[in-house]
Amino acid sequence: MKKFIYPDSTSLKTALTRPSIDAGDMEELVKSIFDDVSINGDQAIQKYTERFDGVSLNELLVSGEEISLAEKALSTELKTAIKLAASNIKTFHESQREEVVEIETMPGVVCWRKSVGIDKVGLYIPGGTAPLFSTVLMLGIPAVIAGCKQIVLCTPTRKDGTVHPAVLYTAQLIGIKEVYKVGGVQAIAGMSLGTSTIPKVYKLFGPGNQYVTAAKQYAQKLGVAIDMPAGPSELMVVADENSNATFIAADLLSQAEHGSDSQVVLVATDNTIIEKVEIELTKQLADLPRKATAEMALENSSAILVQKVEMLSIINEYAPEHLILQTSFNEELLNGIVNAGSVFIGEYTPESAGDYASGTNHTLPTNGFAKQYSGVSLDSFVKKITFQQISKNGIQQIGSAIEEMAAAEGLDAHKNAVSVRLKNIKG
Amino acid sequence: MKKFIYPDSTSLKTALTRPSIDAGDMEELVKSIFDDVSINGDQAIQKYTERFDGVSLNELLVSGEEISLAEKALSTELKTAIKLAASNIKTFHESQREEVVEIETMPGVVCWRKSVGIDKVGLYIPGGTAPLFSTVLMLGIPAVIAGCKQIVLCTPTRKDGTVHPAVLYTAQLIGIKEVYKVGGVQAIAGMSLGTSTIPKVYKLFGPGNQYVTAAKQYAQKLGVAIDMPAGPSELMVVADENSNATFIAADLLSQAEHGSDSQVVLVATDNTIIEKVEIELTKQLADLPRKATAEMALENSSAILVQKVEMLSIINEYAPEHLILQTSFNEELLNGIVNAGSVFIGEYTPESAGDYASGTNHTLPTNGFAKQYSGVSLDSFVKKITFQQISKNGIQQIGSAIEEMAAAEGLDAHKNAVSVRLKNIKG
Repeated sequence: MKKFIYPDSTSLKTALTRPSIDAGDMEELVKSIFDDVSINGDQAIQKYTERFDGVSLNELLVSGEEISLAEKALSTELKTAIKLAASNIKTFHESQREEVVEIETMPGVVCWRKSVGIDKVGLYIPGGTAPLFSTVLMLGIPAVIAGCKQIVLCTPTRKDGTVHPAVLYTAQLIGIKEVYKVGGVQAIAGMSLGTSTIPKVYKLFGPGNQYVTAAKQYAQKLGVAIDMPAGPSELMVVADENSNATFIAADLLSQAEHGSDSQVVLVATDNTIIEKVEIELTKQLADLPRKATAEMALENSSAILVQKVEMLSIINEYAPEHLILQTSFNEELLNGIVNAGSVFIGEYTPESAGDYASGTNHTLPTNGFAKQYSGVSLDSFVKKITFQQISKNGIQQIGSAIEEMAAAEGLDAHKNAVSVRLKNIKG
Repeated sequence: MKKFIYPDSTSLKTALTRPSIDAGDMEELVKSIFDDVSINGDQAIQKYTERFDGVSLNELLVSGEEISLAEKALSTELKTAIKLAASNIKTFHESQREEVVEIETMPGVVCWRKSVGIDKVGLYIPGGTAPLFSTVLMLGIPAVIAGCKQIVLCTPTRKDGTVHPAVLYTAQLIGIKEVYKVGGVQAIAGMSLGTSTIPKVYKLFGPGNQYVTAAKQYAQKLGVAIDMPAGPSELMVVADENSNATFIAADLLSQAEHGSDSQVVLVATDNTIIEKVEIELTKQLADLPRKATAEMALENSSAILVQKVEMLSIINEYAPEHLILQTSFNEELLNGIVNAGSVFIGEYTPESAGDYASGTNHTLPTNGFAKQYSGVSLDSFVKKITFQQISKNGIQQIGSAIEEMAAAEGLDAHKNAVSVRLKNIKG
């Protein structure tokens, strides 16, 4: 970690700079795969699965038998853990339901809105080094609560053509029936365009590598909505002289192990705690299986000594995806936080808790997007339709205002739609 | 209007096809303007304003004096109408506030979320043929309720370098202080990049022509969020033998006068009502100032005779921006509507009411995007931040599940962030 002691505004800017992402221009490649899938459907899907994943599949849809086998393959401990997490995530996301409330904005004019699940959604679960069954929970549970009628899950297989059993078990646990063995750009193309096997969806969710990200961006051009723009994961930890250095180092490493492009930022009001955390980092790093990745991430990372009074402006300027508050003045900060994805309060609230099981969603805005985007929630899986019903009396109350405004905007037919009604009432 | 009598599925598809939008590729042009604004700031803004709008301005920010003059320029009737609309829109959007509710997902694990206004938002109000002060209400009121700290409004001037007084009056009425005389691509570039005069914003809202739409898409590539993808406005009216043909014709024309690319669709269970509406259309068209526009829109439009039982699937397949229900079986339809922007129920509820004054928002998903997008609401101006606080007891309850899941995903540092805490508690 680079260390910054009471940085001036220029140094602070350096300390909070995210690693630049060289996305490259993958649009050509992505477009060619989409075009191919559009013309050749499943055949193209299978071709790219063979080419990129080295797997040849006859059947893309995971069978009932595979799902039964998955359940048997997992330990009871893991299944219990997944059920506990699912229960908490369900409880929190169910609390996000919005009741229909009729509002009489003026006599005879009643307006309301109603949340309706998006009919068809696509969830992408990456394969790669880790089987992200936790993401199945985070995307699948709100989709089910929202009442999405068709929930399509695509995930690449392992080299032997099977999907990790934890992913299959989790999917069936929460009620997802359609799991397809497809990954990468071809999965996103399949769900965006539809093939004879893979259904076309209206909105795409889920993380992925730079190819998947580019494919989701391209899908958006075709009118498919996406959850949010993607970027590397990040964590900011706020500490003071009372913080526990062991906890903080563990939290920083839990973020750093995600990827070499991850970033962690420690902001502290005390130099001693920074030094203690540095010592702890070295100690804990030694035993980590993903040590090399974490070390690279730490190179992109900063420890910053600041005055307490600067804390809020630093948090809000950085707009961290994850923010851990481990100070004796957490309560003072809480009201002032305006830019953050998810906030972890107090020394017994590690980021890991939100990543897996506290109940909050772990699909969050990265790369400073917490300034304008929310994390995934029940809202992400619904549209809110507005309704209005105006009585005879209501249109008499509101009619002349509409006529006046429509005329002033030069929209006479808008005005006339009211006038014919008022005339009819007067007889 | 093209007429379809009990169409089969192929004809129905034709009947519901939207006019194709030849957006062309404007990205080159848009990029060149963004690049210029990025380097030359206000100077570039002024150059393009002179080139595209034929107006030369020394000062982009609208002055207090101009706002005072605007108030004097409007009739009392119009000001009263705007105030009434503002009050209804405020009432309905204030009802969309979400209270903070703490959820204890399991003992010692408390999660909640909090809506926070997006700090900096940009509202674009087109100039052109109509001064869209109603859109100032629809975007400005939720922005103010959300607590957005900086609300920037850009709008092109008229040929004499002034902004229409209704736009200025409405802006000051609802509390918008920064109005800039800039339109088109250069306005979107200014708000996306920031200049010495125009502030950089995090999210852009508002309608516009194809250039503005292309500029908003380009802004999104730079990390600025936008309200929703744009398309021509549209209306579906559902009728039966009891409907009032005069009202329906007036509603269809109110949509058709928007632009030659607008579309209206009449779906009826009775052929006589379709014939009556056609006669009424001809009659009402004769007197319309925007007759030519409305006629062109009607050429893109359909009247469809269907069985009552098909009604819901037609509505949901088309996913209309505006949907008017003027039948004796409205109540039967309501629960089944899943894809629509805003719904107008009953014969005294014209679309005009929602366009101006009922309280609902008129910025709605077009082009079938009601399948996956909501209209603008208070939600559009906030981010929802999640929080969690776990007690010593809580981490003991939830800790082993997190450890189990992290280990199964191969993320040992995630596991360790819990293990160090459990170890510390056990002493």
